[in-house]
Parts: sequence; structure tokens; C-alpha cells
Amino acid sequence: MKFSPALTELIEALRCLPGVGPKSAQRMCLHLLERDREGASSLAHALQQAVERVDHCRRCRNFTELDICEICADTRRDHSVICVVETPADVLAVEQSGSYRGLYFVLMGHLSPIDGIGPAEIGLDRFQERVVEEGVAEVILATNPTVEGEATAYYLTDMLLPRGVKVSRIAHGVPLGGELEYVDGSTLAHAFSGRRAVEQ
Amino acid sequence: MKFSPALTELIEALRCLPGVGPKSAQRMCLHLLERDREGASSLAHALQQAVERVDHCRRCRNFTELDICEICADTRRDHSVICVVETPADVLAVEQSGSYRGLYFVLMGHLSPIDGIGPAEIGLDRFQERVVEEGVAEVILATNPTVEGEATAYYLTDMLLPRGVKVSRIAHGVPLGGELEYVDGSTLAHAFSGRRAVEQ
Ligand SMILES: [Zn+2]
Ligand SMILES: [Zn+2]
Repeated sequence: MKFSPALTELIEALRCLPGVGPKSAQRMCLHLLERDREGASSLAHALQQAVERVDHCRRCRNFTELDICEICADTRRDHSVICVVETPADVLAVEQSGSYRGLYFVLMGHLSPIDGIGPAEIGLDRFQERVVEEGVAEVILATNPTVEGEATAYYLTDMLLPRGVKVSRIAHGVPLGGELEYVDGSTLAHAFSGRRAVEQ
Repeated sequence: MKFSPALTELIEALRCLPGVGPKSAQRMCLHLLERDREGASSLAHALQQAVERVDHCRRCRNFTELDICEICADTRRDHSVICVVETPADVLAVEQSGSYRGLYFVLMGHLSPIDGIGPAEIGLDRFQERVVEEGVAEVILATNPTVEGEATAYYLTDMLLPRGVKVSRIAHGVPLGGELEYVDGSTLAHAFSGRRAVEQ
């Protein structure tokens, strides 16, 4: 005996959420049907809307419902500086620190050869073209201070320095091994102001 | 600066899931859009289907897409014995122990006066009518061995004994303070066979 088909399907579908095992999925399913059917409907709608509408910004690869995201389209920002981060959550963390008014490039990951993620998979080919075409003055590397984040920063440095672009790395106020999105705003502000130029 | 509207709405909607705070919701949202859009669509569909189709069985109150659930409609089961449990997950746990072939009554909770949950809210008025009308031979109380579960079992005993119904409580092989749905099948089988009649 199992749950009825609609419940079984819902429990299975909830497993697509990260960190949700069979027991959590079952608890979530029963909770929604018993106590929050309205929440379940809203969630269904929000999921459908997000899947249909959200895509990557053509310039910075961040998630957006627009062709060019609000940050890239903002003429009051400094378009001569681009900060490279791994994820949309990192953009949010930097924005909330209030320490940066340039643009972003979102890798949506980091180099990870073992997983088949090379430069093209994180958009570095298009990024290089953009930096050269637009005559960007400075690229700030704000990838995570993890092994993969550092390797990605080194790759970007090697790629950009020969093209005469100023490259900097945010200062390590960020705890080593930590993830950017969990760092508080003032530590991030400190890391931005203490950035140093990368020399070859 | 925040995430775009569709992302913000999805992050907010994910918070309806039990145990999901703002950071988990954000991580789930980004994971789905970055790596599992198909999963997100399936989840949206499964949620909508469950909300539209799943209701309570008219006889036992368990979740079902049918008017009368498969267990209640199964003529090979013993219709003279009813096991009272708190949740649909408990029905599943008892079924999986393979130790029981009677019917169920699912309270969808337990008595909790402080939360305004009295006998009517857990269906005890209808249950009493059913037991009397159908001449049920035995009611097995399998509410959780918690304060609320025990109080609910006492209430049911007081309600049923004066009407000449045999009432039994599953044996406490179930660890005290624990929850039925997390107990393994053999412990549950032991608890069923070791049940004792409740005397006044
Ligand atoms: Zn953009
Ligand atoms: Zn039923």
C-alpha cells in the first residue's frame, strides 16, 4: 500500500528540491494538503511563472525576466567596471553591501573540469569579447575563496591581463572556504575597498 | 536591489514548505532555475493536481482522490475492526508493517484544546456514529504515545466503552515521546500483537 497516485506524484516531485529526502518530501506533501492548500496553489503558480519567464540577461547572465537586466540597463551605474561573481545570490549579497556601483558578470558556477565545466560553460568566451569590445577599464574578481573559485579567478586573470585590462581580486575579508552569499555586508564592503591589482 | 519579480515571488512561495527559511528558499529557487527547470515544471503540475484532486475519504478521513478510499472499499479487509491513527503517514507506516488487515480512522491531528482542536475538529462526532451504526467489534487506538496522543486515546476510550465497543491500545513497543511514522515495521507489528483491552 502506498499513498494515492496524486500524493505519490507530489512526494516524488518535491524531491527535486535540494536537501529534500523522502521523509521531508512526505512531510511537506501532507503539510500542504492538510494545512496550506492556498500556499500549494501559489507555489505551483510561482514555479510555472518563473520557469516560463526567467531567463539569463544577455549581457551579464544574471537571472531576469527582461532581455537586459535592470542593473545592466541602469545608466547611473559605472559601466567601465565589471565584477565577476559565481551566482545570482552573490550579486544580491554585493548589492546589499552597498559598496559597489559598477556592473556584473555572473558565471553561474565556476570552472570544474572534473564535471565537464570549462570556460565556455561559464560564458568566458562571450565575456572576453565583451570586455575587449566595450573597453572595460577594470574587472573585479569576486569568485568564492574556494579551490574552484580561486582557479576560476586565476583563469580570468590569465585571460584578461594580456589584453591590457586592469584585473583586481576582492580582499580576503571573506573567510576562507566560505561562500560569498553568506558574508555580511560590512565584511563585503571591506573586501571591496581592500581589493588589490593583480600583477603578472 | 532584490531578485527580479518572478524570482522574488517564487522564493516567497517556497516558504510555505515546512522547515524552509529565507536562505533555503533562495537556494531552492536558484537551484531549480539553474539546474532543474523540468523538475520545477513537474512540481508545479503535481502541486496543482494534488490540490484539485485530493480530498478526505468520506469514511476514514484519509487523503484520497476517490469518494471512498481504496482501503475502506476493500472487501477482503476486516470491516469489524477500526484502527484510529493521527495522520495519513501513520496509515502508511501500519500498512507497511503488514500486521493489520482492518480499517482505519484518520484523526488528521489530535485533541489540543489550546489550539482550539476539540473532538469535532478531529471528526470524533462522525466516528462515534459510525462505530455504533456499523456495530464495529473493536477499535484499536494507535495515536502517538505523546501527551496529546494519550489524551486523545483516553477521550476515545471514555466515548466508546459506555457504548459496549471493545477498545484496545497498541502496546508500547513504540518509544515514548516518539512519532508513529518513524517506527520500523517489526516494532509496529510487535506493538499490534501486544495490544491490550482497555478496561474501565
Ligand atoms: Zn544584466
Ligand atoms: Zn477511507
